[in-house]
Amino acid sequence: MKAEQGPDLAKAPRTERGRKTLRKLLDAATREFADHGFHDASISGITRRAGVALGSFYTYFDSKDAIFRALVSDMSEDVGRAARQALSPSMGALEIEHAALHAFLSFASENKEIYRIIDEAEFVDPDSYRAHYETIGTRIEERLKAGGDSGEFISGLGAPEAWAVMGMNVFLGLRYAIWSREGDPAFEEIARRANDLLAHGIASSGD
Amino acid sequence: MKAEQGPDLAKAPRTERGRKTLRKLLDAATREFADHGFHDASISGITRRAGVALGSFYTYFDSKDAIFRALVSDMSEDVGRAARQALSPSMGALEIEHAALHAFLSFASENKEIYRIIDEAEFVDPDSYRAHYETIGTRIEERLKAGGDSGEFISGLGAPEAWAVMGMNVFLGLRYAIWSREGDPAFEEIARRANDLLAHGIASSGD
Repeated sequence: MKAEQGPDLAKAPRTERGRKTLRKLLDAATREFADHGFHDASISGITRRAGVALGSFYTYFDSKDAIFRALVSDMSEDVGRAARQALSPSMGALEIEHAALHAFLSFASENKEIYRIIDEAEFVDPDSYRAHYETIGTRIEERLKAGGDSGEFISGLGAPEAWAVMGMNVFLGLRYAIWSREGDPAFEEIARRANDLLAHGIASSGD
Repeated sequence: MKAEQGPDLAKAPRTERGRKTLRKLLDAATREFADHGFHDASISGITRRAGVALGSFYTYFDSKDAIFRALVSDMSEDVGRAARQALSPSMGALEIEHAALHAFLSFASENKEIYRIIDEAEFVDPDSYRAHYETIGTRIEERLKAGGDSGEFISGLGAPEAWAVMGMNVFLGLRYAIWSREGDPAFEEIARRANDLLAHGIASSGD
């Protein structure tokens, strides 16, 4: 968890108990910010949900802003971890994109508050918002280039294709994980169709 | 302009002068909300920027919420209009997607506040936020289906592909129109590369 790594995000706990308290605070902050939004969320609301004394909050964070920043960073890490855990070394480049999207859809569906919190960062903490997408964009770009190197993808892919793939994934998550409706295709079908588009495009063959 | 059509959005002006005042208020609101965000923006800030008496505001809007809702609807219309104006009846289905993205990149580059205002609607007015994307998604889906009917695109395209295309366009706009950097490829190249991805995908031929 990145929040434990840098003093600018959270004061690192030194004990196992401290790590548990920090985790409780971040989980409680997720619910508090998701329910009330940043402006109406309060530190006392966070500590009450966490079942932690108000003083303990200040052991780890200086302010509501500080825990929000730590939370965005923590969620950003979680998204990356969910994708990585779905991948295995034997997968081809295309299969990796399929698995990453499928994992993201499942993750977003189980963590619906992620869109609201990351999106609110655009206003509360623009640097974290931008860092979130720049980091994911760079990761996708590296995967596309690796696919180009292995010959599975065409060569010359770069940031524009990576941002296109990221946008596809974010909007498919918005529509099918957050705004899901009865009768929607299953995540498996969504991921397969997005993967087909990514692999072969939508022009009729011969075009 | 949609704001003039429904009493729930703005009280429709009956005179040319009234239409001009409404336009001034919406343009001033764009700047006020972009500079301060919804919470810190004020009606007096909007009327001051518009050079319009405070009483005139209430001729058209009941509240700060009401003008925000009208503005999101107005911007949503503007995005659609910018895309439509770039299209011509002679274009093929793929060329239409290229022109729509190119027009959107130019529009976003000249109206950078659009991302901030549409994105803030997720918190201030979630229904408008969702309506904005549902409307664009439906429009793209219709274009993809028309391309399938004409034989230029594969058949069976639907909402998942439409939301994928929308996500590509929104994120390419975010990266290259809003967060543009020196040395970035020109919009022409971005639109061409996105169009290549959409047409043929990124798998090596033979895959």
